[in-house]
Amino acid sequence: MGNSKKIVIIGGVACGAKAAARARRLDSEAEITILERGNYASYAGCGLPFLIAGAVPSVDTLLTMPWGAIRDAEFFKNTKGINLLLRTEALKIDRENKTVTAKNLDTGETTDFPYDKLVIASGANPVAPPIEGMDLKNVFQLRRPDDAVGILNCIEEVDAENAVIVGGGRIALEVVDALMAQAVDSTIIELMDQVLPNVVDSDIAGILTVQLRKHGADVRTGERVEKLVGDDNGNVCKVITSKGEYKADFVVVAVGVKPNVEIAREAGLDITDRGTIAVDDRLRTSDPDIYAGGDCILNDDLVTGGKSYIPLGSTANKHGRVIGTNITGGDATFPGVLGTGFMKTVGLNVVRTGLSSAIAEKNGYKIETFLLSGHDVSHFYPGGKDMIIKLIADAADGRILGAQMIGAGNVPRRLDAVAAMITFKATAAQVGNLDMGYAPPFASAMDLLIHAANSLQNKLDGIAVSMSIMDFKKKLESDKDFCILDVRAESEIERSPVDKGNSRVLNIPIERFRDEIDRVPKDRDVLVFCATGTRSYEVQRALAMAGRESVFVEGGMHVLEKLG
Amino acid sequence: MGNSKKIVIIGGVACGAKAAARARRLDSEAEITILERGNYASYAGCGLPFLIAGAVPSVDTLLTMPWGAIRDAEFFKNTKGINLLLRTEALKIDRENKTVTAKNLDTGETTDFPYDKLVIASGANPVAPPIEGMDLKNVFQLRRPDDAVGILNCIEEVDAENAVIVGGGRIALEVVDALMAQAVDSTIIELMDQVLPNVVDSDIAGILTVQLRKHGADVRTGERVEKLVGDDNGNVCKVITSKGEYKADFVVVAVGVKPNVEIAREAGLDITDRGTIAVDDRLRTSDPDIYAGGDCILNDDLVTGGKSYIPLGSTANKHGRVIGTNITGGDATFPGVLGTGFMKTVGLNVVRTGLSSAIAEKNGYKIETFLLSGHDVSHFYPGGKDMIIKLIADAADGRILGAQMIGAGNVPRRLDAVAAMITFKATAAQVGNLDMGYAPPFASAMDLLIHAANSLQNKLDGIAVSMSIMDFKKKLESDKDFCILDVRAESEIERSPVDKGNSRVLNIPIERFRDEIDRVPKDRDVLVFCATGTRSYEVQRALAMAGRESVFVEGGMHVLEKLG
Repeated sequence: MGNSKKIVIIGGVACGAKAAARARRLDSEAEITILERGNYASYAGCGLPFLIAGAVPSVDTLLTMPWGAIRDAEFFKNTKGINLLLRTEALKIDRENKTVTAKNLDTGETTDFPYDKLVIASGANPVAPPIEGMDLKNVFQLRRPDDAVGILNCIEEVDAENAVIVGGGRIALEVVDALMAQAVDSTIIELMDQVLPNVVDSDIAGILTVQLRKHGADVRTGERVEKLVGDDNGNVCKVITSKGEYKADFVVVAVGVKPNVEIAREAGLDITDRGTIAVDDRLRTSDPDIYAGGDCILNDDLVTGGKSYIPLGSTANKHGRVIGTNITGGDATFPGVLGTGFMKTVGLNVVRTGLSSAIAEKNGYKIETFLLSGHDVSHFYPGGKDMIIKLIADAADGRILGAQMIGAGNVPRRLDAVAAMITFKATAAQVGNLDMGYAPPFASAMDLLIHAANSLQNKLDGIAVSMSIMDFKKKLESDKDFCILDVRAESEIERSPVDKGNSRVLNIPIERFRDEIDRVPKDRDVLVFCATGTRSYEVQRALAMAGRESVFVEGGMHVLEKLG
Repeated sequence: MGNSKKIVIIGGVACGAKAAARARRLDSEAEITILERGNYASYAGCGLPFLIAGAVPSVDTLLTMPWGAIRDAEFFKNTKGINLLLRTEALKIDRENKTVTAKNLDTGETTDFPYDKLVIASGANPVAPPIEGMDLKNVFQLRRPDDAVGILNCIEEVDAENAVIVGGGRIALEVVDALMAQAVDSTIIELMDQVLPNVVDSDIAGILTVQLRKHGADVRTGERVEKLVGDDNGNVCKVITSKGEYKADFVVVAVGVKPNVEIAREAGLDITDRGTIAVDDRLRTSDPDIYAGGDCILNDDLVTGGKSYIPLGSTANKHGRVIGTNITGGDATFPGVLGTGFMKTVGLNVVRTGLSSAIAEKNGYKIETFLLSGHDVSHFYPGGKDMIIKLIADAADGRILGAQMIGAGNVPRRLDAVAAMITFKATAAQVGNLDMGYAPPFASAMDLLIHAANSLQNKLDGIAVSMSIMDFKKKLESDKDFCILDVRAESEIERSPVDKGNSRVLNIPIERFRDEIDRVPKDRDVLVFCATGTRSYEVQRALAMAGRESVFVEGGMHVLEKLG
């Protein structure tokens, strides 16, 4: 074995463990060593919020293979012939002599590990914002299993009733949901003016916020955490923000992560201007014998053609596979990502891919969007659930740039389908013609995704003229004069955007519209309104063909209600 | 209005109704008339089995808009300004004078309808096989709402306990599931040697068959119905087949449909050699003023580049939209279909797209396939459900030609994603790198679809050497000498492909395999076996790198068990 290839891997969670396993399957002789500073390797990091919720019973569960084996050092040794060293921190890379110096965190002993190929899968660490009081007891960040266990222990020890969550991103909102399962009330403090900033648009964020509040979360946006205050025992007890103060039995800070690149930087490897390890599409660093993957690199952005920092376990696993191939003599490349992200919280599936409206505009695209509400199965089939679908296209050529969906329904299905199409730069028209699966238990004959794509195409073609629900809300709050032409049936208008008898509303059910079109005022803006945007579109078309300008409100009453 | 365009549409179910609605939204002046010979228009035909099951309470439900309006003639008139004539059968097209002659089926009166643009959406009728006794009472075919009501009435009238279903295709199997809900036992008689012939491969059909039988259906394949026998009252009471006879309180014949093209043929329009109305990609027939869509035309096949007859409501709606655009002066084309088909029966979602293995081979492709079993959410997350995924690729270039999936889990999500990719001629490697959504409530970090695509790529690369579960079953039944190397843990081997102590089996749990590799016999074929095909792949790789030939069994015990 003395002549066999030596592979050393720094970090053994997602990318590192996968690179090791793939390398082993392609090279039975290589000596493969993983240096992992934590207590666990190859754990499902994305499962940590569910450990807090109790949905996942123990840390071991996150380390378990489907057939029950636990991915500990013995498992790696026996099953894979891989040398996994836990609590072993890589300190330094000597590129000239091709060694990594690592310290055993228990004994303090350091050892040099020679390598032929080195993989840096050092991941990322939670950002610790420069707030006074971050070092108080019961202030947590969530990255490793011990963090989740720490939160659970704290809840029990202090009999916690309320927590402040600093940040309103994905992990923050998963933690809020988990804490509800533990009967802990959360206050979310988000600096930006919405939850999931840069992830979803304000409409989707608004719908999610209403649902979070319905479930008891106190959501505060556009608010800056100034200070964490401790009690006499050094336990956090209060959070002071730019707008107020909140009692807190504990605090979870989840404001993003930052790549761990110090060891690479010190070794003189190229670092990008965004602070990640520079790699090519084979995931090779500036040193041909060193590869890097996972949360410490940028990805090619398949939508913009640029680079994005989107750390995610699914991507890290793909990186590991590419690296495992390449360090054993193969030739694999990683094409890049769309930025697909899924989360589940307060009973809603929130899914997105590609560019958000704001990011698309920041990238110089002139965009057109469409938002539609409906069901995930045929409306006549029992058990259907709500979905809201929003598509974002390049107004110049109709290419889909991004999609966002929210609801209790099967939005993952529609999102992955559109993500697959965005990979190939599909247009709205192409999405509208996708041969999606159909049968009443699964979809309408025109699935909501197809319908949304067609509607967006109608908008791009100038056939459909609409107003977003957010703009409609703003208009409602303004003192402008306009007419809401509500074309719903009389039985439906109980739930209305405005109070009964409001002079702004004219109700003409669509069934009577053709006869009563002359009742529509000519001296005011006309906003056509219905339950979802289907009938209002039809009436907007009829008005347009009669030479009358109007706009219909996307999403209609269904979405307006969800916005609270 | 005398100068406005006259649009006549023959058939008002899916394509016809959609063409009319789209045309109306683009041309408010046109006179639009739908001639529909049935009692209903614009009903959800795919919902008929669920009407039988009782999941859909009434025919009206299939005619209802999401907001409660019923799509009757009054609805079409008032809401859309469309003239819908029910029970009005188009008899003849006079292309020279541009009129359609139609008969009122109640009064017998005929009327000529002049047209500027004509749409033929005449659909398809169930094939009536040339079997003696087809004209007996209580012999049904399922095409229109009245047929479903007829079956329900019959069940009540004769207090039916058992039915014979002639055919084992999608509608047949949906009906079987529906009849279970009505406590009627079904016997399925399928001429071909599997259910869903030409739709799914024998492995997926086998899994479905086992489940059908578990639910009490008597599935007979490779059996020809010879005769339906009636009692003294002219009611069917028995079905005689090539292999036996079966008592039947009623019979449902569902052996496919055939396009209704007589009116087009008699008008001298081009008819394809497959008996459909010939159209171009704008869905225009050989007469530039006549369009056709829905179940009476062929579609471009996006996989083979040829033509396919795949009648489906979702496709018919897309046709209608294209036609509605084109007959009002627009320019839309229909790109074609993949052959995506979904069904739900006996608790299983059965979904497919593209070419089946047999059809791919018939089209001259040399194929490679991979089948994998797993869960639809992270295995550590509660509530996950089973999925089996099979991918079919062109062995020459790795392009995915088709996919089939079965299980209680969210296979629609994975199927639509791969369908979207097949639209763009994606390879297995591209599917393996798809940026699918990930979070533990939705998927594993490496989703089963990604895993299946990677495995197929490994096979194409010669890295993975496997045997299909069907070939393994055949081998088990043969008297050949071979070794099943079972690498599962001892706790798992209770459920095994062979009896305990069988000399063909050698159990070496994967954890011990590296030490005990010398125990693997050299004088026999070695078939590596585990629960799903994951560990067995790893061992096959280890053997290969030690210079030893072996194959691993795709799907492993999980799939073998489902095959009964």
